[in-house]
Amino acid sequence: MDDDAGALPSKEDFSAWYNDILWRAEIMDVRYPVKGLYVWYAYGFAIRKYVYQRLRDLLDRDHQETLFPLLIPEQEFMKEAEHIKGFEDEVYWVTHGGKTPLDVKLALRPTSETAIYPMYALWIRSHADLPIKYYQIVNTFRYETKQTRPLIRLREITSFKEAHTVHATWEEANEQVEEAIRLYREFYDGLCIPILVSKRPDWDKFPGADFTIAVDAIMPNGKTLQIGTVHHLGDHFSRTFNITYEDKNGEQKLAQQTCYGISERSIAALISIHGDDKGLIFPPAVAALQAVIVPIMIGKRHEDVMAAAQQLTNDLTAKGFRVKLDTRDMRPGAKYYWWEIRGVPLRLELGPRDLDAGKVMAVKRTGGKDSICLATVTEDMTRILGEVTDALRARAEEHTKSRLCTINSLDSLNTSLDAGKVAVVHWCRQKECGDAIEAKTNASILGTNVRSQYVSEIDGTCIVCGKPGKATLVGRAY
Amino acid sequence: MDDDAGALPSKEDFSAWYNDILWRAEIMDVRYPVKGLYVWYAYGFAIRKYVYQRLRDLLDRDHQETLFPLLIPEQEFMKEAEHIKGFEDEVYWVTHGGKTPLDVKLALRPTSETAIYPMYALWIRSHADLPIKYYQIVNTFRYETKQTRPLIRLREITSFKEAHTVHATWEEANEQVEEAIRLYREFYDGLCIPILVSKRPDWDKFPGADFTIAVDAIMPNGKTLQIGTVHHLGDHFSRTFNITYEDKNGEQKLAQQTCYGISERSIAALISIHGDDKGLIFPPAVAALQAVIVPIMIGKRHEDVMAAAQQLTNDLTAKGFRVKLDTRDMRPGAKYYWWEIRGVPLRLELGPRDLDAGKVMAVKRTGGKDSICLATVTEDMTRILGEVTDALRARAEEHTKSRLCTINSLDSLNTSLDAGKVAVVHWCRQKECGDAIEAKTNASILGTNVRSQYVSEIDGTCIVCGKPGKATLVGRAY
Repeated sequence: MDDDAGALPSKEDFSAWYNDILWRAEIMDVRYPVKGLYVWYAYGFAIRKYVYQRLRDLLDRDHQETLFPLLIPEQEFMKEAEHIKGFEDEVYWVTHGGKTPLDVKLALRPTSETAIYPMYALWIRSHADLPIKYYQIVNTFRYETKQTRPLIRLREITSFKEAHTVHATWEEANEQVEEAIRLYREFYDGLCIPILVSKRPDWDKFPGADFTIAVDAIMPNGKTLQIGTVHHLGDHFSRTFNITYEDKNGEQKLAQQTCYGISERSIAALISIHGDDKGLIFPPAVAALQAVIVPIMIGKRHEDVMAAAQQLTNDLTAKGFRVKLDTRDMRPGAKYYWWEIRGVPLRLELGPRDLDAGKVMAVKRTGGKDSICLATVTEDMTRILGEVTDALRARAEEHTKSRLCTINSLDSLNTSLDAGKVAVVHWCRQKECGDAIEAKTNASILGTNVRSQYVSEIDGTCIVCGKPGKATLVGRAY
Repeated sequence: MDDDAGALPSKEDFSAWYNDILWRAEIMDVRYPVKGLYVWYAYGFAIRKYVYQRLRDLLDRDHQETLFPLLIPEQEFMKEAEHIKGFEDEVYWVTHGGKTPLDVKLALRPTSETAIYPMYALWIRSHADLPIKYYQIVNTFRYETKQTRPLIRLREITSFKEAHTVHATWEEANEQVEEAIRLYREFYDGLCIPILVSKRPDWDKFPGADFTIAVDAIMPNGKTLQIGTVHHLGDHFSRTFNITYEDKNGEQKLAQQTCYGISERSIAALISIHGDDKGLIFPPAVAALQAVIVPIMIGKRHEDVMAAAQQLTNDLTAKGFRVKLDTRDMRPGAKYYWWEIRGVPLRLELGPRDLDAGKVMAVKRTGGKDSICLATVTEDMTRILGEVTDALRARAEEHTKSRLCTINSLDSLNTSLDAGKVAVVHWCRQKECGDAIEAKTNASILGTNVRSQYVSEIDGTCIVCGKPGKATLVGRAY
């Protein structure tokens, strides 16, 4: 990394800050020679590992992990009409093996319904086989023609967690939709990321779904980022791929399906929402390092301090904390700067005076310091890391609340959106009124059926036609 | 799964056994509608998870995990001449995004040198940046025209662990080659898989390497399976991709590189070497389930037995064992059969009599049973699982030894190979003699510089020309 690259842009200038922090903190390298493809630095990959481990832990309660092929033959991919329409412009096609043209073109999965469901048709026979709840974490591909951005809009989505469930009835599938929303809430709560859950308008649902429930986060500039979706697929795909089961009465029935996904956008939100003007701040639960230990070497006490710092490192590691002793030959201030940029939530400074007092200075990346006893440090760590988590969660909630506003007229809607807000309006759910809102504001109707502690007035009059309407989120989306 | 599919073929008929066990034990489904692409069942994926976790644990000692893009632009892929020659016939090409032809064709990585090394050229500046030791676990692609086989010869290799290191000198890179061999030895020892390490002949080395050290296992039918390779790349790629560093004297030097890989063939070997006529047997270290608990319900003691079995399950789980209580409404014998096929190393049977005696019957998948005290079961588990591990390792070593033979004439070489042996011959290392051996036997020279406890006579006369030669492995390879 360049040490002479000047200061990190202020987070006020979010786009500049975001581009800069990704390489300064060694999350992603954007210099790979293909548009929309990026490289995970080792440090960024470690964050990914802990974030996805949490996701796996949640899913593994009652899902099973599997792995399906990347390449989908054209005839399978082209089976479900709505699905094709949704993806045909952005699918990458493999046409040659070596110098030989392939008999059947192969799609790089943009999502895996058409790879997985032909197998489900083979696997499912009876009601006793249901429900099925599988997931995989894979790379998927979209030929994006819009501006690409690391972690946000990619041509290779490197880290797509997609779950695909099969149920006997529409209602059971619907209950799974609710369960998935609960899982995603728990996941994002663990990352201290406040979410807005809503039902996407019909024109924005997943191609081939009955309906789509989306999870959005509000980014620092007020734009929303879709960081999860849950789709009720009904029998659209089971009809196409002939996924049937024999019910208790011996009749063949079409299965009902759901699917739900989360990508590395979760990490884009994590980075963006918690970072500050000094760099990143990771919640301890997913931090690659939860604490860095910086020995302060002054004068003759070098060996004493180093030995104590090493002991502290060993003790904390033995207790399961992810810590690193920074022994590099650099000034302490330069080390502080280095680890602040990289978002390590806690710094433990240990110098001769601390040592004499049997103490270590714990400096929280969210602000504040605390001189703690070396004798009880392993117990205190949990508390202090908990304080960092609480501070991050409180800030993120404050940010989200401050960005939301309730708007009653189309004119003020535009003003609010321009000011970086996400608006709650009331809408009658007629397409014409929806189009009017989007045209007037250059924004999107994110969704209805809003579920958020920040949104309370569910009923109201439509902001366009004045007829009875329901609370609806309107925002400028990534 | 079909319950009426008849008996598992005997392992004597290895090819039939292998194809059958993969679906019976729910490892891979071969019915995906593209040749050479297979689906990981959830049970198979769990095995993969534990196997690759071991690999990660070993590498994470001093490597870092990263992730590079799948798609490699044609101009980068085509830079290193030998490398292209080695792969040009088997690379899949993406030529279209949606309906639009791409300006630059994109290769699906067959291996990632040409994706990674342009980035290394950006990352490495000074001797202080070296060594670099990164790895990734990714899907890679080969347009195989030979017969494909699940886990062995694939068009999508789903689980390629590739490490790529950079060093200041050829000697340091060579020391890394030795370190990689040690790592792979430790990895395969953990899987109880005996390996043969040798140096591939020049005509069979990795395209663009100075030399290749290969790790082979002997499969049940006597064919060898390459389950790991370590390449000294010298400066072939650093020259092409301009990977240089400033040495201590301020001079620009070409970096020296290595790379080494392991794929899901490790799991093919694991399954094949340990399985028997009853099904799979997994070493406890990587078993998805280390023990299955089968309650034997006779008469009125149903609730007692079930409560004790649940308690046992909870106790073992709390101690970190991977166990499952099988409560299905099936005869115990049917459950035994089910878990034997799936290779669970230990079965714990608990019936009313065991309960009265405060005991549980531990039945080892490798043979033998042991009535152990419920009170001390968590301590006994470690011992008993260790016994299974020891039995598997001993059997596998016995198998490997029995398949190796030293051969002194070309005529008997063919006979031995036909009898399913891997031969140690002496060879002068001249290409003509090597060609003669391969032509005469329809086999391959696997390698020289053989490192195996089973091969002791290093020096001898060339089996073709009679000049001084070195021990050389000859086998029929997958």
